[in-house]
Amino acid sequence: MTDKIRVICWNEFRHEKKPGIIQTIYPNGIHEAIADALRKEPDMDVKTAWLDQKEHGLTEKVLDNTDVLIWWGHGAHDEVKDEIVDRIQDHVLNGMGFIALHSSHFSKPFKRLMGTSGSLQWRERAEKCHVWCVNPYHPIAKGLDDVIEIAHEEMYGEFFDIPEPDSLVFISWFEGGEVFRSGCTWHRGKGKIFYFQPGHESFPNYYQPEIQKVIVNAVRWCKFDGSTQTRHIGVCPNAKFTLNILSNPSEREEDFM
Amino acid sequence: MTDKIRVICWNEFRHEKKPGIIQTIYPNGIHEAIADALRKEPDMDVKTAWLDQKEHGLTEKVLDNTDVLIWWGHGAHDEVKDEIVDRIQDHVLNGMGFIALHSSHFSKPFKRLMGTSGSLQWRERAEKCHVWCVNPYHPIAKGLDDVIEIAHEEMYGEFFDIPEPDSLVFISWFEGGEVFRSGCTWHRGKGKIFYFQPGHESFPNYYQPEIQKVIVNAVRWCKFDGSTQTRHIGVCPNAKFTLNILSNPSEREEDFM
Amino acid sequence: MTDKIRVICWNEFRHEKKPGIIQTIYPNGIHEAIADALRKEPDMDVKTAWLDQKEHGLTEKVLDNTDVLIWWGHGAHDEVKDEIVDRIQDHVLNGMGFIALHSSHFSKPFKRLMGTSGSLQWRERAEKCHVWCVNPYHPIAKGLDDVIEIAHEEMYGEFFDIPEPDSLVFISWFEGGEVFRSGCTWHRGKGKIFYFQPGHESFPNYYQPEIQKVIVNAVRWCKFDGSTQTRHIGVCPNAKFTLNILSNPSEREEDFM
Amino acid sequence: MTDKIRVICWNEFRHEKKPGIIQTIYPNGIHEAIADALRKEPDMDVKTAWLDQKEHGLTEKVLDNTDVLIWWGHGAHDEVKDEIVDRIQDHVLNGMGFIALHSSHFSKPFKRLMGTSGSLQWRERAEKCHVWCVNPYHPIAKGLDDVIEIAHEEMYGEFFDIPEPDSLVFISWFEGGEVFRSGCTWHRGKGKIFYFQPGHESFPNYYQPEIQKVIVNAVRWCKFDGSTQTRHIGVCPNAKFTLNILSNPSEREEDFM
Repeated sequence: MTDKIRVICWNEFRHEKKPGIIQTIYPNGIHEAIADALRKEPDMDVKTAWLDQKEHGLTEKVLDNTDVLIWWGHGAHDEVKDEIVDRIQDHVLNGMGFIALHSSHFSKPFKRLMGTSGSLQWRERAEKCHVWCVNPYHPIAKGLDDVIEIAHEEMYGEFFDIPEPDSLVFISWFEGGEVFRSGCTWHRGKGKIFYFQPGHESFPNYYQPEIQKVIVNAVRWCKFDGSTQTRHIGVCPNAKFTLNILSNPSEREEDFM
Repeated sequence: MTDKIRVICWNEFRHEKKPGIIQTIYPNGIHEAIADALRKEPDMDVKTAWLDQKEHGLTEKVLDNTDVLIWWGHGAHDEVKDEIVDRIQDHVLNGMGFIALHSSHFSKPFKRLMGTSGSLQWRERAEKCHVWCVNPYHPIAKGLDDVIEIAHEEMYGEFFDIPEPDSLVFISWFEGGEVFRSGCTWHRGKGKIFYFQPGHESFPNYYQPEIQKVIVNAVRWCKFDGSTQTRHIGVCPNAKFTLNILSNPSEREEDFM
Repeated sequence: MTDKIRVICWNEFRHEKKPGIIQTIYPNGIHEAIADALRKEPDMDVKTAWLDQKEHGLTEKVLDNTDVLIWWGHGAHDEVKDEIVDRIQDHVLNGMGFIALHSSHFSKPFKRLMGTSGSLQWRERAEKCHVWCVNPYHPIAKGLDDVIEIAHEEMYGEFFDIPEPDSLVFISWFEGGEVFRSGCTWHRGKGKIFYFQPGHESFPNYYQPEIQKVIVNAVRWCKFDGSTQTRHIGVCPNAKFTLNILSNPSEREEDFM
Repeated sequence: MTDKIRVICWNEFRHEKKPGIIQTIYPNGIHEAIADALRKEPDMDVKTAWLDQKEHGLTEKVLDNTDVLIWWGHGAHDEVKDEIVDRIQDHVLNGMGFIALHSSHFSKPFKRLMGTSGSLQWRERAEKCHVWCVNPYHPIAKGLDDVIEIAHEEMYGEFFDIPEPDSLVFISWFEGGEVFRSGCTWHRGKGKIFYFQPGHESFPNYYQPEIQKVIVNAVRWCKFDGSTQTRHIGVCPNAKFTLNILSNPSEREEDFM
C-alpha cells in the first residue's frame, strides 16, 4: 500500500511505431516521455497503458488502482471501445482525475465528460505560441511565471466547443493570429478534469520543463481530496427519513392517491 | 415563416395511458398539460412528440424546425435510441434550447449533455416543497417573487450529480429535511439548457401558475440569440491564414520535418 | 413613460476638450460617439453625463431612471466621489446594468463591483488586435462572426485582476504577443455587468461597426429582466414565519437562553 | 522560518466580554474557540487578533506573515477602519486566504471582496439546520459525509447577495422553511475566499467536530499554492516587448499620431 499518487499515462502509441519525425522525437512513445517526467516526482507512482493492449490497458482493476489518468490520442479515437469509455466516466465521477492532452480534445472520454463535441479549428504550421496564465491562484500554475513561450506548436483556435471551464488557467497566443483556451479545469461528480493544449506529436514540447511542470501540477491537483460520501455516484437511492427531523412529515402520497 | 419560438413538448407518454391517478391528473399526457400552458403565449408555436412515435417524433426535419425542446421522461429512458440522442446533442450544440423536467435528470439526452450520471436521492412522499430563487437577476425568474410554495412534491435530494451550473436559479427545500438545486442552467456550444425539478407525475404541479411561468420564461431564455458564426459546431476545420496578419509566419513545419 | 431602454453614456470628458489627436477623433467626446451609435437603435433612449457635472451628472433621480450605465474613464478615476460610487453600486445591485469600457477597468465603480484591483499590463503602440468570440451562444455576440479585426489598439495583457467572469465572451490577441480577456460578464445582485476592452482614446475604434454592435448588444443584455422580488437588495430583513409550514418550529432560542 | 500555515483568527470580541449566554458559551471569545480547534492541527501556526487592538491587530507586518485570515464580526462592522480593509484586500489579492464566518457576511472586508451588499434574511430562533454537501469533490468537504446536522442555528435565508460562487460547497436547510448557500468559495487575484454560515454566537456550534473540520479544511484550501508571478497585483505595469516575438510590430502609434 502506498500514499503515492497512482498515475496512468495512456497513449494511442501508433504514430511512434512508424519511422519518421514523430518516432525520432518520441522513440518510446509520448506516454513514456510524459511518464519519465512524472517519475522524477517522489510522490508519484507512474504506469503506462495504450490502445492496443487488452481493454486498452484499462481494466476495472487497473482503474480501481488509479488516482489520475492522463490521455493522449490523435488518429484512432474511434477505436476506443464504448464500454471502456463508460468505465472511465464511472471512475471519474467517483473521484479519478482525468487529464486530456492536446488532440485528446476529440477523444471519446473527453467528449463524454464534457457533453460537447470538443471541436475547434487548427493549423499545422510551426507557429510560435505563448501560454499565458490568467488565474495565478490556481495550483496548476504553481511555480510558473506569467507566460510560457513555446517555440513551435500546432495552432488550435476558437471556437473550442467545451463547457465554460470551472477555471480557465491558461490562454494561448498563436503567431498566426488566433487565441485558444489552452488550460481548462472542470469537475464531474467527485472527479477533477484538466485539459492542456500543448503537445503536438511533431514537436518535442513534452520535454520542455515548463510544460512538464504544468502536467506535474495538474496530476497533484487532480487527485481526489474531498468528501468521504460513500454512495457510489451514478446510483439513485430511495432516501428514507434518516435525518433527525423534529416531526416526520405525514406520508401523504398514499392519502393523496 | 414565423418569428415565433418553435417549441416541442416531448413526453414518454406511457403512464398516462393507463387508468390511475396519473391519468386522472394528466388525461392527455404531461406533454399536453405543459403545451397548453405555453400555447397561451402569443410568441410561441407549440407542438408535441412522444416516445412511441417514429424516431420518437424527433426526425431531423422536426429538429431543424425547433427552437426549444422540452423533455419529460421517467420509466423508459433506456428505450430512447442513441441515434436520436446524437441528433438532439448535435442540435443543441448548434443552438437548440433544451429543457429537462423532473425525472428527466436521468434521461439520455440530459446525461449526454452534462457528462455526468444525473444521479440523486429521492423519496416518494407528498412533501411540502419551497422553491427559492437564488439569482433574481435571471430571466427565468422574471415576474416571480422570492419563493414558490408547492403543496406536494416528490423529494429530490443532494448529491445531484451535475456539473456545477452556469447559473443556479432555484434551490428547493423539502419538508423531510433535504435541499436540492432545482433550477439550473448550462451552455453547450451555441445551446442553452435548463433543468427544473418540480413535476412529479402523481401531483398536478404543472397546472400551478408559478411553475408554468418558470417554464414559459425558460423557453424564452433558451431560444438561441447569439453569434452568426456559420461553422457547424462539431466540425474541426483546418484553418488557413485568413486573418489580415502583418506578415505571415513562415511555414516552418515542413522545414522542421 | 417609455418601454425604451434608458441608457446613460458617461465619460470623463477631459481629454477631448484639449486640442490634439483625441479631440480630432472624438470632437464631441467619446460619450457622444457611443451615444450616437446607440441612438440609431429604436428601442433605446440615450443620454450622456460626465465628470465635471454636478454629482458627475448621476443624481439619485437620474439613476432611478436609468436601465444601463456605460462608463468611460481614464485619467481622473480618483476624482469620482465615493458617495457617487456607493450610489452606482446600490443601483446595480438593484437591477441597473453597468458597462465598463477600456480604461474603465481601473474606474472606482468597476473596482467596487468586482472586489479586485482591475490591474493589468498595457502598452501604447498601434498594435493589430483580433477579438475572438469564445462563447457564441451569448446575446452579446449576436450577429457577430468568429472574430473582430481591429487595425490599431492599445495592448492590454494578462494578468487582468478580475474575478473569473460568469461568461467570458471575447478574448483578444495582440500583435506584440499578448492575450486579454476582453469581453467579460458578471452579475451582482439583480444587476448585470459587462467589461469590453476596445476603445483607446487615440484610435477611432468606437466608429467601427462591429464594436458598436457589441455595445448595442451589451446594452440590451444588461437591461434588467428578472424577478419581481420587492426587497431592496442591501437590506437585511428579519424574517418572520411567513411560509405556510406544517407546524411552526418551537421558538426555542428563548428556552435555550 | 516555518512551513506551517500561519493563521489569524480575528474576532470583534465584544459580546463575550459581557456576562450572558454568549460569554458562557465562549468564555475566551469565539476567536479562541476556533483557534483552539486549529491548534490541534500539526501543520498550523495559529494566532488571534481583535477589533480593539491597535490597527485591529492587523498591522502590515502581521499580514505579511499571515497565510489565512479568519474573520468573525457581528455588531461592530462599522468600527473597522477603511485603511485596514484596504490592507486586507491588498493582501488577499496577493495571495492571503480569507475565511468569513457567519455574520461576517456583512463585514467590510467581505463586502469589499465580493462587490455586493452581503445582505440576506435572518431569524433568531433555535432552528434545526442541515448542511448538505453539494460538491463532494471539494477539498473543503474532505472527510465529511453528505450532511452535517446542527441542532440549533440562526436561520439565514436567500436571497443572499453574493456573486455566484466559484464553487458552491454547502447548502443549508432550515426547519422554518428556508434554504441558504452556506458554504461558498471565490477567488480574487491570487487569493482564495471561503464563506461559511454556521456559528451564531448564542449556540456552541464552533465546538461541533464537523464544523471544526470544515474550518480546518478551509484553512488548508485557502493557503496560496499557485503561480510565482512576481508582479504585485494592483499595479498596472507598462509592458515592454519582452517576449521573443519573431518580428517586433512597428511602433505605429507615433506614426498614426
